[in-house]
Amino acid sequence: MTYDHFFFAALARLHAERRYRVFADLERVAGRFPHAIWHSPDGPRPVVIWCSNDYLGMGQHPKVIGAMVETAERMGAGAGGTRNISGTHHPLVELERELADLHSKEAALVFTSGYVSNETGIATIAKLLPNCLILSDARNHNSMIEGVRRAGAEKKIWRHNDVGHLEELLAAQAAERPKLIVFEALYSMDGDIAPVNQICDLAERYRAMTYIDEVHSVGMYGRAGAGIAAREGALHRIDVIEGTLAKAFGCLGGYIAANADIIDAVRSYAPGFIFTTALPPAVCAASTAAIRHLKTSQWERDRHQECAARVKSVLDAAGLPVMPSQTHIVPVMVGDPERCRQASDLLLAKHGIYVQPINYPTVPRGTERLRITPTPYHDNALIDALAEALVDVWTRLELPLGHHAIAAE
Amino acid sequence: MTYDHFFFAALARLHAERRYRVFADLERVAGRFPHAIWHSPDGPRPVVIWCSNDYLGMGQHPKVIGAMVETAERMGAGAGGTRNISGTHHPLVELERELADLHSKEAALVFTSGYVSNETGIATIAKLLPNCLILSDARNHNSMIEGVRRAGAEKKIWRHNDVGHLEELLAAQAAERPKLIVFEALYSMDGDIAPVNQICDLAERYRAMTYIDEVHSVGMYGRAGAGIAAREGALHRIDVIEGTLAKAFGCLGGYIAANADIIDAVRSYAPGFIFTTALPPAVCAASTAAIRHLKTSQWERDRHQECAARVKSVLDAAGLPVMPSQTHIVPVMVGDPERCRQASDLLLAKHGIYVQPINYPTVPRGTERLRITPTPYHDNALIDALAEALVDVWTRLELPLGHHAIAAE
Repeated sequence: MTYDHFFFAALARLHAERRYRVFADLERVAGRFPHAIWHSPDGPRPVVIWCSNDYLGMGQHPKVIGAMVETAERMGAGAGGTRNISGTHHPLVELERELADLHSKEAALVFTSGYVSNETGIATIAKLLPNCLILSDARNHNSMIEGVRRAGAEKKIWRHNDVGHLEELLAAQAAERPKLIVFEALYSMDGDIAPVNQICDLAERYRAMTYIDEVHSVGMYGRAGAGIAAREGALHRIDVIEGTLAKAFGCLGGYIAANADIIDAVRSYAPGFIFTTALPPAVCAASTAAIRHLKTSQWERDRHQECAARVKSVLDAAGLPVMPSQTHIVPVMVGDPERCRQASDLLLAKHGIYVQPINYPTVPRGTERLRITPTPYHDNALIDALAEALVDVWTRLELPLGHHAIAAE
Repeated sequence: MTYDHFFFAALARLHAERRYRVFADLERVAGRFPHAIWHSPDGPRPVVIWCSNDYLGMGQHPKVIGAMVETAERMGAGAGGTRNISGTHHPLVELERELADLHSKEAALVFTSGYVSNETGIATIAKLLPNCLILSDARNHNSMIEGVRRAGAEKKIWRHNDVGHLEELLAAQAAERPKLIVFEALYSMDGDIAPVNQICDLAERYRAMTYIDEVHSVGMYGRAGAGIAAREGALHRIDVIEGTLAKAFGCLGGYIAANADIIDAVRSYAPGFIFTTALPPAVCAASTAAIRHLKTSQWERDRHQECAARVKSVLDAAGLPVMPSQTHIVPVMVGDPERCRQASDLLLAKHGIYVQPINYPTVPRGTERLRITPTPYHDNALIDALAEALVDVWTRLELPLGHHAIAAE
């Protein structure tokens, strides 16, 4: 092939910028979460995972595994088709009912991923609103940015969580122009939360539609795990709730929940939904089991918050630059891609602790960090071991320790 | 919400055009394929599925279900993260090796769907080639069209399978300009096949890169099920092979296979890959089991072709307008969206036969059809019952029967 040099050059650029990524080959062991096997270049080694998005460990819950196994045995592996062409199956229909109920909406629609649900959901909704203006938070996830881009509509970016700026942009528009405000409930790299009710106030005042991404909050916040909007009593004020089955629910897939016509319109018009194979029955049944469990069990949510608070306080006491976070996300600032990777490598090689470096493009350059995600299953001994390991790594890499060391963004 | 009328109007348009889609709620029964339960508005009813993309019934193969169950029990439900952030697991690494081996390429990369693999794969590759011209077959799938659109590069559409037209477009370009030819091996709605070697001849003559979609051929054609390019002896002439795990392999997900640098570059630059949760270990292990089985077992492929040939000949003898097809796809032309839906409804309600109508936008308006996909498990009695049912439906709807009735496109 004559174009090899282009791909070689693209990879060389990443190496030069110190942001070439290497994926750790992991083998989770059901029932032993957060312990896992790392298939290292030198052979298998035990590790403790400290950066999983299986935030509540539900991916290993016996009810969830049980539903997956039972359904695979009863119905087989794949769905066998797109939703329209033989791929709509009973566990998927039940899952969509469960999700609508969770968010107190009329209907829900499941996609193969949260990424696709944002990308095709936002684009499709905006395209159905004539001359729509999209107002997008500056820190929205890549999947939302792609959705906004694909909508082909005019967009305005409002400064992150700045409702004053959002109001300015809204007020500058004609009252009758359709407007779609898209934002996240919980921003996953910093761990901060959107002022949901204030945004809804503005949406009502300026007749805008609201689309909230609850990917990092469903299952974990609000009554029955319905998310941040539910916790803030704003569920009925939000038009479209987007969420995932792949994080706190421990499985795979994304979804939106809204009134019946919005869901039916997206179902009927979204290419990224129409032309793709449905999720397997076993994955849907496992997701439903996780949602149902977390609707009634508060234990995981309570223990999750306790554990996150403890991690923050222990790391902070050790002088590590824990970034302020209102949630279960515990970012520890490094501020340099190379040292961020070195810190991660040392943790893994020397301490058997797996925390992936978070570099650009996931976070802005200069804010490279370790992003620690405590789960209900990280006990005090693991937390103390994490703090010791981090201090050792910080010392070896001559990164600053001490309470004044918190890096500003 | 103040915008309800926009969504209501969008749905009304579909109803008015007779292309509002209703999904059948199915429940497959492992071991009884192609028999299934249809959750009809009046309660559960037995049906025979005649439009599954689980082309070889592998979604219900004991080895595939066994791998899914064993892996779920051992490793849990979800992957727990994006590929970079704790989501790369051992069954996924093994699956990628298996896929690279299947297509005799250095490496492979798995996506959450075939749709995403085309969309983000084509866009990412084209973006890494400066001033790239994309040459796209006129009948390429929506996922490829979206990939081309997203690349942001100049594109030229060549008439479907017309190598003369392709050459004309290639010859008009400067020799040194990077060019990417994207096409399908097997077009799934008509069942025709691309002239793979002739396209490769042109690619070599005009120094273009080739990207082939083998979604409807992997597992089913070529030695070991490596697809149409393999059957034509052209595997080494193709730069990027895209395929799916969700059709002949009976599971979920898509992939590309190519040389190591191309795969590594897409892995590193594709947003639709980077920012999405990895496929569950159990889904990957099930896919690997299906691929391995079909590498050595020829029974499914032989029986599949026999069954498709028999369906074509029986329907043709009954005077039904079977469209000419070189493959396992058996399209029966209706040519009108409303009667296409009525035919499908009658088959389901009166005969317990499930064949979804294929209407716009999946096929061009005026070519609405029933698309029948025989599998190795549709026996002679089922084929005869299908023919009888179709003749009954054709008679009731006063659709033309007889050998001169084959509709032209």
